[in-house]
Amino acid sequence: MKPTGHMDQALIEARKAADRGEVPVGAVIVLNGKVLASAGNQTRELHDPSAHAEVLAIRAACKAMKSERLTGADLYVTLEPCPACAAVISAARIARVYYGASDPKSGGIEQGPCIFSHPQCHHKPEVYGGIGETESAAILRRFFKTRRQA
Amino acid sequence: MKPTGHMDQALIEARKAADRGEVPVGAVIVLNGKVLASAGNQTRELHDPSAHAEVLAIRAACKAMKSERLTGADLYVTLEPCPACAAVISAARIARVYYGASDPKSGGIEQGPCIFSHPQCHHKPEVYGGIGETESAAILRRFFKTRRQA
Repeated sequence: MKPTGHMDQALIEARKAADRGEVPVGAVIVLNGKVLASAGNQTRELHDPSAHAEVLAIRAACKAMKSERLTGADLYVTLEPCPACAAVISAARIARVYYGASDPKSGGIEQGPCIFSHPQCHHKPEVYGGIGETESAAILRRFFKTRRQA
Repeated sequence: MKPTGHMDQALIEARKAADRGEVPVGAVIVLNGKVLASAGNQTRELHDPSAHAEVLAIRAACKAMKSERLTGADLYVTLEPCPACAAVISAARIARVYYGASDPKSGGIEQGPCIFSHPQCHHKPEVYGGIGETESAAILRRFFKTRRQA
């Protein structure tokens, strides 16, 4: 599926993450058509295993809103969220998740623990996959190919 | 099971969290017998839905170690970790998790998504439950009883 404008912005964050040597994933949070925050993966730079793009964008948006919840917000992320990100997305009460490429290796929404499918998940967002997946997957492939050659 | 010294410290963090009006959960990270970090839940104070005790302690310990991994470290936490915390525990390569009370409502290790039981989980720590569970559960019960009466 062709990416929307917000997913284009998430793809830009993913490319910027690659330029910094981080696994290239980007995320954008939108509320009522307004971008609240955007971020790329920073686990290495920040020495923080929780610093995935989605969590950093959620933290920044929550800070901006002075709230631990982002009720009604949309999240655009270039890769299927991992289980940690999926659980934080639920805790933040994100309304809709638009993601790019699927992640059979580490995904947590459509794969493995399927975070939103258990009674222990108290808020289940709407989920739409495959938005901008071709470009998202290409960015990841290029990044890992370059690293293997390094 | 009677709590160890490190779980006692985690229980102190839980009590301090309650005093600040946060859901009382505490965590301590230990590497080679040395406490690297301890933290209590701060989701409200920080406006951060990811700011559970475990994640805050892991982030602080990673910062201290200048690494996104805590290989060989032990985590003591007063309540069964939620799915987000369990996934970050795995990403941080924590070796052993000692937890207090089980959490049928929101737990992610022995309940629901059972984070460590899927192929998408690339590191499975050893897990020991029920350490200091009586005191941990009592602290939570007191906190929620007081809030209901407020």
